[in-house]
Amino acid sequence: MGERKYVIGVDFGTESGRALLVEVANGYEVASAVSEYSNGVIDERLPGTDIRLDPDWALQDPNDYVEVFKQAVPAVLAASKIDPADVVGIGIDFTSCTMLPTTPDGTPLCFLPEWRTAPHAWVKLWKHHAAQPEATRMTTIAAQTDATLLPRYGGKISSEWLFPKAWQILNEAPAVYAAAGRVLEAGDWVVWQLTGQEARSAGLAGYKALWSKQHGFPPNSFFRALDPRLEQIVDEKMTRRLHPLGGRAGGLSEQAARWMGLKPGTAVAVANVDAHVSVPPATVVEPGRMVIILGTSNCHMLMTAEERLVPGICGVVEDGIVPGLWGYEAGQPCVGDGFSWFVKQGVPAALSGEAAARGISVYQLLEERAALLKPGESGLLALDWWNGSRSVLVDGELSSLLLGATLATKPEEIYRAYIEATAYGTRLIIDTFEAHGVPIHEIVVTGGLPDRNALLMQIYADVTGRTLRIARSRQGGALGAAMYGAVAAGVRSGGHASIADASRAMGDLRDDAYGPIPAHQHVYDQLYAEYVILHDYFGRGANDVMKRLKNLREASRAS
Amino acid sequence: MGERKYVIGVDFGTESGRALLVEVANGYEVASAVSEYSNGVIDERLPGTDIRLDPDWALQDPNDYVEVFKQAVPAVLAASKIDPADVVGIGIDFTSCTMLPTTPDGTPLCFLPEWRTAPHAWVKLWKHHAAQPEATRMTTIAAQTDATLLPRYGGKISSEWLFPKAWQILNEAPAVYAAAGRVLEAGDWVVWQLTGQEARSAGLAGYKALWSKQHGFPPNSFFRALDPRLEQIVDEKMTRRLHPLGGRAGGLSEQAARWMGLKPGTAVAVANVDAHVSVPPATVVEPGRMVIILGTSNCHMLMTAEERLVPGICGVVEDGIVPGLWGYEAGQPCVGDGFSWFVKQGVPAALSGEAAARGISVYQLLEERAALLKPGESGLLALDWWNGSRSVLVDGELSSLLLGATLATKPEEIYRAYIEATAYGTRLIIDTFEAHGVPIHEIVVTGGLPDRNALLMQIYADVTGRTLRIARSRQGGALGAAMYGAVAAGVRSGGHASIADASRAMGDLRDDAYGPIPAHQHVYDQLYAEYVILHDYFGRGANDVMKRLKNLREASRAS
Repeated sequence: MGERKYVIGVDFGTESGRALLVEVANGYEVASAVSEYSNGVIDERLPGTDIRLDPDWALQDPNDYVEVFKQAVPAVLAASKIDPADVVGIGIDFTSCTMLPTTPDGTPLCFLPEWRTAPHAWVKLWKHHAAQPEATRMTTIAAQTDATLLPRYGGKISSEWLFPKAWQILNEAPAVYAAAGRVLEAGDWVVWQLTGQEARSAGLAGYKALWSKQHGFPPNSFFRALDPRLEQIVDEKMTRRLHPLGGRAGGLSEQAARWMGLKPGTAVAVANVDAHVSVPPATVVEPGRMVIILGTSNCHMLMTAEERLVPGICGVVEDGIVPGLWGYEAGQPCVGDGFSWFVKQGVPAALSGEAAARGISVYQLLEERAALLKPGESGLLALDWWNGSRSVLVDGELSSLLLGATLATKPEEIYRAYIEATAYGTRLIIDTFEAHGVPIHEIVVTGGLPDRNALLMQIYADVTGRTLRIARSRQGGALGAAMYGAVAAGVRSGGHASIADASRAMGDLRDDAYGPIPAHQHVYDQLYAEYVILHDYFGRGANDVMKRLKNLREASRAS
Repeated sequence: MGERKYVIGVDFGTESGRALLVEVANGYEVASAVSEYSNGVIDERLPGTDIRLDPDWALQDPNDYVEVFKQAVPAVLAASKIDPADVVGIGIDFTSCTMLPTTPDGTPLCFLPEWRTAPHAWVKLWKHHAAQPEATRMTTIAAQTDATLLPRYGGKISSEWLFPKAWQILNEAPAVYAAAGRVLEAGDWVVWQLTGQEARSAGLAGYKALWSKQHGFPPNSFFRALDPRLEQIVDEKMTRRLHPLGGRAGGLSEQAARWMGLKPGTAVAVANVDAHVSVPPATVVEPGRMVIILGTSNCHMLMTAEERLVPGICGVVEDGIVPGLWGYEAGQPCVGDGFSWFVKQGVPAALSGEAAARGISVYQLLEERAALLKPGESGLLALDWWNGSRSVLVDGELSSLLLGATLATKPEEIYRAYIEATAYGTRLIIDTFEAHGVPIHEIVVTGGLPDRNALLMQIYADVTGRTLRIARSRQGGALGAAMYGAVAAGVRSGGHASIADASRAMGDLRDDAYGPIPAHQHVYDQLYAEYVILHDYFGRGANDVMKRLKNLREASRAS
């Protein structure tokens, strides 16, 4: 054993998992490796079958998660050339709510031949939005029966969360539901695979399963009001014993230690939400500083010393992000995902051909051209709801809008309008926090986009009118997971005593920053006002055309 | 000379001119030829200069029109192998209002070295929309000063018409305006080039220059109220002596006869609007049957025995389409043009590559895929205002909208939504006519799209709930122009006595037709209702975001 101690963070994303090996003392990132999910996002056909999935579905294969442990962790150990005995802890973070039904011993139902062809036996990815009817009904019942529940979740229950997804299984595949001994977050499931024992995370339950430190889960009477068959769901298929963030879920099992090449008994941290683990690496462990992850989706996190209720914020959870504080999560479900859709479906051959000829990506060429445009010059305005609105409308049935195109409109103008739309969405979230007593005096960004898209960064600074600082690590999720691994290990094993200590030792910001340009702010203030008008018109009930179109679409597909 | 007599129609379109040689007795189309305009639509830079044009501009080069006479007419004569002496008449039709300033002898100012680099010296094409401020101001003044004027034009003066365009010249280039001895429609100008004498069309003036058989032009006091410098525009730069449709403008001059290889003195018809000449070839010379030209733009024409005022219809002109009846013109300025923009700017390489590999056009592949979709299946809804709304809003400052896109949205779904949007626009026009006492008992379509796009035809039948008949000629514009050539020649020279006679002898419908599918109608009735809500919200003042974005765009470009 050497003097230096290390931790491994494993960050389970939407398309792949990443392992990062980090030095405990200073956060130095020694090695990282990525394992792509071989079945990726399953949204057209169930693997190995002709079973077609409805358009709102998004599934995954839990075997892809195990492969991350078997492939990416040995890869970082090999690359780092350290003694595996010096790895004192492992932490994981996971997309959420990504959930699955398993047998009582944790075997995913989709691993069993009898359930292999049942779509509901597979993992429902966070962006599976087919449980909207269940979510809508839950919101109605919650409003009628429990005065304290909805205000903690911004006024609406999201179709992305655990209970709507579980209820959808019950409604559409009651046999799958009956066969499920457990329904749980995939994050908790992978921790179970590491330790051999179920140890569910209070953070995951707080944000995605209506649990709170003060009130626990909603009472059985609430579930009975939803559906008598759901009455015992918590006691039958879940557990009321939850483990706080920063805790140790257990030690590595022999089997999991063999998968990875680590020592059995190595500390394994309680699972955490992918977004939330990015907060400590961004040096944020106190109130008033917002962390925004800019990536496939955007996630906005913030803490306060006392509880504040903010409409449309997806969760207010005590100890939910950093122990000792109230954690707030807001989000935009579709940011980089929207740009990716546009690049794939909306960029003409002339442009992609030019990018190929110049040896740059289509994104780079679009950014280069879009950066030449002035704010307002395109005449375009968009609503960034390709995947619904999470904050502040909490409505998965909304869809996107592009307004202002003429025969002169160019792809780079649309691309810029889409970036701007996501920036307006972020400003609306910031404005909503501040209007409800949660001041924000600094913004730190992290995630994949800050490094890749300077235009986006400048637009966000211009639209929000704030300076954006940037977390130094390019792997904030995996680094944050590793920090929790260090806390799970504890000081005596060479880890850290608290997440605040870990953040101070292992987190850092870059020296550069993006500040708003006043002339741009002036134009964007006007465009943002237009965005808010459209946002409220289409999002707050004046014209529910998006929902009616969705109903027509579903009726058409069913006919 | 043979027994069979012939006429030539020359159809001046947006990108090219077409000559068609037709047998007078039966409309048999002997030969046709197209001459592309070498300068096409000038909307980025003035030819031979670095002078950049604002985005709403669209100019043309009058020399391109002369080349049509010099190239396409000799080509049809050569191909048809007839004796040129058997050509008894020539008729032309032209896009409108396409206008230009000339010297008193008809020389385009842009032909003169001193004006060659002045954008305002060139032809302003129909879709030049930069005179919107002038059009708006004219509408205001007309509403204040003349109770009879606006109701004949649907309540608004369009930026496409002659006086707003002339006024824009005066406002932005007073020296060009001062140098212009004449301002006139390009259609009248080409007739002048053929006969050597100015003989302006009452049809063109009726639809595009506020003239009526009953009232003549607006009084000088109206023009003085606009701008004192405009007071004498009619007497100084135009003429009050107008020639009725179906009349003879004059005989071919020696020079023009040489250009084309025809006999000097051959009858030349008074100029006509491109859209309107398509009505007699579609067999329509009576009330109650609507002719729709489906093409780059859509034009809807209809006639009544007595005047009816219909809001948002672009013109109600006595004798304006067929002598003896009130002619109504409505339109959608951007149909095929919108599809073309989408194919150029919005179709990804994967799709255009597949089309190329299969040896079909991108349009064909899009249509093939879009035809597999059911109505409502895409969840998309669009507003077809890439180039503003002509009928029924008469507002060039509107822009397009696409609503409902998700991450699953495919290009063929957008394409279908765009086709559907233009169909809803057509239904809104039909509904508006009927709501104001103009019944429509049959629809005949013509233009470029009926042959090329079966999907579009079916969608139009489904959305309007009507059977669409199809004019037999694929060259309705040129055939209609030729019919007017035959009427200009008269019976004694081997032509026809009236346009009704010419239509009966030379026009015809196809045997096939597109009828509505009831199951589709049911869905489209619901989607149309959504279209109307959005149409009214964005088009009738509830949310003028499109105009505000346009103002921001202009301010941004100017800054």
